Amino acid sequence: MIKSRVLSSELKNNVGKNVVIAGWLYKKRELGGMTFLIVRDRDGLIQVLDDKSKESEKLKGLYPGTVLIVEGEVVEEKRAPGGIEIHDPKLKIEVPVEFVPPIEIDKPLSHDSENLDTLFDYRVIGLRNVKESAVFKILAEVKDSMRRFLKKNDFVEFNSPKLLAGSTEGGAEVFKLDYFGKPATLAQSAQFYKQIMVGVFERVFEINPTYRAERSATTRHMTEFMHLDVEMGFIDFEGLINIIGRMLKEITEQVWENCEPELVSWEAVKPVLPEEIPVMTLADIHEKYSAANEQQTIGEKDLRPDEERWICEYAKEKFGSEAVFVIEWPASEMKFYHKLNEKNPNIADRFDLIFRGVEICTGSMREHRYDKLIRQLKDLAGGDPENPGFKYYLQAFQFGMPPHGGVGMGLERLTQKIIGLSNVKEASLFPRDMNRLAP
Amino acid sequence: MIKSRVLSSELKNNVGKNVVIAGWLYKKRELGGMTFLIVRDRDGLIQVLDDKSKESEKLKGLYPGTVLIVEGEVVEEKRAPGGIEIHDPKLKIEVPVEFVPPIEIDKPLSHDSENLDTLFDYRVIGLRNVKESAVFKILAEVKDSMRRFLKKNDFVEFNSPKLLAGSTEGGAEVFKLDYFGKPATLAQSAQFYKQIMVGVFERVFEINPTYRAERSATTRHMTEFMHLDVEMGFIDFEGLINIIGRMLKEITEQVWENCEPELVSWEAVKPVLPEEIPVMTLADIHEKYSAANEQQTIGEKDLRPDEERWICEYAKEKFGSEAVFVIEWPASEMKFYHKLNEKNPNIADRFDLIFRGVEICTGSMREHRYDKLIRQLKDLAGGDPENPGFKYYLQAFQFGMPPHGGVGMGLERLTQKIIGLSNVKEASLFPRDMNRLAP
Repeated sequence: MIKSRVLSSELKNNVGKNVVIAGWLYKKRELGGMTFLIVRDRDGLIQVLDDKSKESEKLKGLYPGTVLIVEGEVVEEKRAPGGIEIHDPKLKIEVPVEFVPPIEIDKPLSHDSENLDTLFDYRVIGLRNVKESAVFKILAEVKDSMRRFLKKNDFVEFNSPKLLAGSTEGGAEVFKLDYFGKPATLAQSAQFYKQIMVGVFERVFEINPTYRAERSATTRHMTEFMHLDVEMGFIDFEGLINIIGRMLKEITEQVWENCEPELVSWEAVKPVLPEEIPVMTLADIHEKYSAANEQQTIGEKDLRPDEERWICEYAKEKFGSEAVFVIEWPASEMKFYHKLNEKNPNIADRFDLIFRGVEICTGSMREHRYDKLIRQLKDLAGGDPENPGFKYYLQAFQFGMPPHGGVGMGLERLTQKIIGLSNVKEASLFPRDMNRLAP
Repeated sequence: MIKSRVLSSELKNNVGKNVVIAGWLYKKRELGGMTFLIVRDRDGLIQVLDDKSKESEKLKGLYPGTVLIVEGEVVEEKRAPGGIEIHDPKLKIEVPVEFVPPIEIDKPLSHDSENLDTLFDYRVIGLRNVKESAVFKILAEVKDSMRRFLKKNDFVEFNSPKLLAGSTEGGAEVFKLDYFGKPATLAQSAQFYKQIMVGVFERVFEINPTYRAERSATTRHMTEFMHLDVEMGFIDFEGLINIIGRMLKEITEQVWENCEPELVSWEAVKPVLPEEIPVMTLADIHEKYSAANEQQTIGEKDLRPDEERWICEYAKEKFGSEAVFVIEWPASEMKFYHKLNEKNPNIADRFDLIFRGVEICTGSMREHRYDKLIRQLKDLAGGDPENPGFKYYLQAFQFGMPPHGGVGMGLERLTQKIIGLSNVKEASLFPRDMNRLAP
């Protein structure tokens, strides 16, 4: 369309030359007879100086968002974004915007909790703010760095169906739909499919939309979110913890390497993580927390939200780690596919990975022995092995599954914690909760 | 779990050494007092020779799928898979399989159309056949090579919601669900969201599940499939065709580079594609087809299935290309968001990309001017601009959208054609159609 268009990121290599740039009018400012335009393209912002305000007359009656093609000279100018300014511009209005935008595109919308509805109501335009869109460049890099790490470690990416005959893990939080007159549900998790796929490729992962009919609109939950599911065979609990720890460390490092300007725009702080993320038992955390906080959590079966925050502070100071693996969870709280510890049947071989005060990942070894799995299915979930929702899953075990384990991790929540956002929805392009289905 | 396990792919570098391998019993064969075992791990097959059939007694009463750990000496043996055999094995039964498998795991199930139900009913176990699983290594590489190509060309990956308040493009083929007492639908396409995202990042793509309530169970259709959505701003029709042609060529080359053994197992033939894929008009194809086939399709508004096959044969012979872009489609058949050709308003700037006899990709320039888009929405789709399903989409245009275009492409269908499978479902791990919701 435009021959030899130059992107904002390429201007530095074109100082002194006449170039053509293209993008959206981001901001217009008049100052002592001069007009400064900021043009946004896919790489960033470009300042254009119209020193006699002559060309800018073409913008009369037009608003930010107007699509422009600008020809002009590239000049170094320390005070401009990227240290570059375009002088002696010739403007071509490619697409005029004749409506006053409902928000100021060059100013990020407030992320305060009471303003989130406004943030999302104006999302389509609000995302054009470069600080806002930075969140989704970071999210894309979180995804990419996960994929790179997992592929490097021999994992095969797959996609499992989200339309199911029954719900995988039961519970009320399942969306139901009409499937040609038959009942169907939307997948709440890829749990069964990823385990089945261990029988095929040993090491698999899926990055997939996940659906939960959550009746509450909290800062932690959405009804649709992107989920990483990882599963691997021929591994033990220690090996599982090790690889997931390395993955978290590598993701944070890669994101900082590839998205530093975006992270800096949010004043994000690089996570402190050691080579090996510390592993603590639930009992040990209860004990230390109770001693330090004049609280009594000893014997509790879960961590309190305040304990999750506290233990991350503690681990940061004590071990130089903003993340902690929590192990030795009571068997009474396990899911039917979890595996009991061989030596101590009162605990299950599962973990929570707590990062910056919140659980970002849960993982476990899975019961891989057919007989034991059926017993746990009946005893712990009241499940019928002949139910089609379980039948195919159990086939994998009937015909040989190795010791295996895996994890699940929400992408928006991890991105939220990496950036330091307060609500998981801020890390979702078009979030969904019980009150929101649009835009 | 197993210290210093060696994978099948690593055996070549361990000739003469004692190693530990692990995997599933794939096949057992007795021959003149000797027992040959084939063990499958994530990298391939390993032959184990138990020359006195002593150790193999441990396998008595056990069936394929049994999980084994084998220690033995790596010996070169041309007649074995990978040219390697394990001698003097010591067997450890890690997980015994005591049930007769319903299918022979070492033999691929038939893909004949009348046997597809059996293929999918036994999918969980059938995928353990190495030829069967090869399809999904190829599919994973199709996805990966797409992503690499698009990222290299500055595209940002995003994810749009699949839970919508209304259907994006109307029609009966939409799944409806209950969303906390309100009606909702599953996304039939990411069309509106990817266009909205052009306003944010200029170049975007999404690889996402897509839902169509197709009432027919054809060889081409599924109710849930993986779809590539690409959209880019500041481009013209020629530029769009160019980049998509390069993408197809690069995908096929990368897949052949990285999955040759898997493709060879299916007797796949590498696609013949020139540097520039030929572009033909609909009218020209009608004319040539009619002349060559004693048929009369001149003036028809679409290509007949037989024409799609014929034109690919023709282009292969004439231009050395198994793919053809078909342009100049009648305006009467366009969707409301398509763009009319500037010089000839009887045709729309859209294309079909036909590959090996089937349309694998449709693309178009989009109407980017707010006023014209609203008129087309009303005139062509009878749409109400105030309808929430359109309102947010139109906001993007109200506040400035550059000339842009994009494409959609089904991943299973592309994989099907690359391998040479006859039904798109063969390229889906767990296919869904109106009669199938399991496994």
